[in-house]
Amino acid sequence: MKIAIDAMGGDRAPQNVIEGAILAAREYKVNTIFVGQPEAIEQELKKHRNLSDIKYDIIPASQVIEMNEHPVEALRKKRDSSISVAARLIKSGDAEAVVSAGSTGAAMAAAKIILGPLRGIKRPAIATTLPNSNANVTVVIDAGANVDCDPVNLVEFAIMGQVYAEDILGNKPARVGLLSIGAEKTKGNKITFETYGLLSEAPINFIGNVEGRDVVNGTVDVVVCDGFVGNILLKIAEGMADMIMDAMRTEFSRNIIAQFSALLTKPTLRRFKKRFDYSEYGGAPLLGVKGTFIIAHGGSSANAIKNAVRVAKESVTQNVNAHIESKLDF
Amino acid sequence: MKIAIDAMGGDRAPQNVIEGAILAAREYKVNTIFVGQPEAIEQELKKHRNLSDIKYDIIPASQVIEMNEHPVEALRKKRDSSISVAARLIKSGDAEAVVSAGSTGAAMAAAKIILGPLRGIKRPAIATTLPNSNANVTVVIDAGANVDCDPVNLVEFAIMGQVYAEDILGNKPARVGLLSIGAEKTKGNKITFETYGLLSEAPINFIGNVEGRDVVNGTVDVVVCDGFVGNILLKIAEGMADMIMDAMRTEFSRNIIAQFSALLTKPTLRRFKKRFDYSEYGGAPLLGVKGTFIIAHGGSSANAIKNAVRVAKESVTQNVNAHIESKLDF
Repeated sequence: MKIAIDAMGGDRAPQNVIEGAILAAREYKVNTIFVGQPEAIEQELKKHRNLSDIKYDIIPASQVIEMNEHPVEALRKKRDSSISVAARLIKSGDAEAVVSAGSTGAAMAAAKIILGPLRGIKRPAIATTLPNSNANVTVVIDAGANVDCDPVNLVEFAIMGQVYAEDILGNKPARVGLLSIGAEKTKGNKITFETYGLLSEAPINFIGNVEGRDVVNGTVDVVVCDGFVGNILLKIAEGMADMIMDAMRTEFSRNIIAQFSALLTKPTLRRFKKRFDYSEYGGAPLLGVKGTFIIAHGGSSANAIKNAVRVAKESVTQNVNAHIESKLDF
Repeated sequence: MKIAIDAMGGDRAPQNVIEGAILAAREYKVNTIFVGQPEAIEQELKKHRNLSDIKYDIIPASQVIEMNEHPVEALRKKRDSSISVAARLIKSGDAEAVVSAGSTGAAMAAAKIILGPLRGIKRPAIATTLPNSNANVTVVIDAGANVDCDPVNLVEFAIMGQVYAEDILGNKPARVGLLSIGAEKTKGNKITFETYGLLSEAPINFIGNVEGRDVVNGTVDVVVCDGFVGNILLKIAEGMADMIMDAMRTEFSRNIIAQFSALLTKPTLRRFKKRFDYSEYGGAPLLGVKGTFIIAHGGSSANAIKNAVRVAKESVTQNVNAHIESKLDF
């Protein structure tokens, strides 16, 4: 399987991206296509010895879309950007998936414009995962691709989310919930009222409305919301985790007994932190486009990139897109 | 100052409510009016000795609105419910504030229908606080009173939130942010775009858009959003705190060293937990109605009720409503 890596995308690209892609190439036996400025890529590759055990190509792309550029405009102006060239590799059949830690907006624009949406999908969406108290993860879809959504969009998200949770995360059958402000059908806003009715008739395992706390308490596998709410929800969850860690650190440095107990607690805290390490869960797939597009965090570590490649490979192997299309025929 | 207590409202009413109100009466020197079924109230009061140091009355109300009743319908049918009688005490001038741990919907309906909105306010809103990493709290308004809002509603929330943060929480000048999906003016949905423009011209200390993580990182004092988003945000924050505490407990019980370190860590964790104890922060005021209405959590402890009475007293003393009205004249 050939996976194109946007070598230039990400806060610490190409270094971390290439390191992660090499780890993935070894572990998951994928053929890697590094897309970007050849000199920069070659220079990074030189830092790694014995690359004879992996298969890779370099496809040149002279431009990079920066985080602060307007995605659609940048895509039009920079036709030789690494993300555009990577997307065209899928279109031409030279790659089966793309992994990018660059501008999320640019990746979405490239996927939508160059590859186009899947048959029956109006709005592709980003599926992200949050750790939950079942020592598992909950899918949140949409995580920020679409801010203003109508009920039909939300039904598409629900279908795509269920396929992802079942095919890639192995939560089968995935319980799909509509994010609202109460479990009862009558609790919600104008959009959720209408969506509830549509979801009840769609071919998904719809369990009804779920609330904010259900996102992390393990009672639901897929949480459906618009990208505005999804983005806010994910960022407050991250913020809470950071704040609680900081507060723990403060408490543990307060006096000598606390410091001593912190020392003893270290292995416990390390295990704990690992559960909340987002890089373990790989990137977030952009679902609903023709091709496999995995969006990694801009600050991705090599490990995060490696896991994003794993998700890309599994998405192709499991035929996620075909499953989504078949579910849409209802 | 006379404060009416909805003695029948709350999961463990009247027990906890009366215990908390007695604590408050002693500490804050307020005159307490217990509203509800006289026998039930008398029976609870008997459990407390030496009530000669506090001033209280009992005003009978024969009915209770349950959590699962439709608020407006229940209010119409149960004209002698404790929350209705309490609201009428404000209207007649016999009380200056109401504290209720009963149905939030019923409390809102009673406040809006019996007392009416403040001059210039279209939609009263609930202001809640979340602990932040500055060892302070952030106000979230609206926390769930209004699910579908227009930009003008959000401007009213911003004004009321700023007055509350300054007058009651002492964060002066309070930094007011609009909850969105990026700091830039161009990031958001249809409603936030329009609201951003209005907030820029309103007489408030508007610092621009804020993101989910800003709610808890101490960079903003008042976060403005509609009640749908506010409710989801608060519930995921609670869910995250619970999940992290559970995960800590699991890690600490894993082996004998972890158990020993847990023992040493106990005082540290206790201090830590206190920072996240919502009952410390008192109830959530329903802002924008004629009168002072403090809504306490249904599961309020006596301590939470005590703090809700403190917030009620301070809201009256600080003239919160007059400040809101004066700010609306722009």
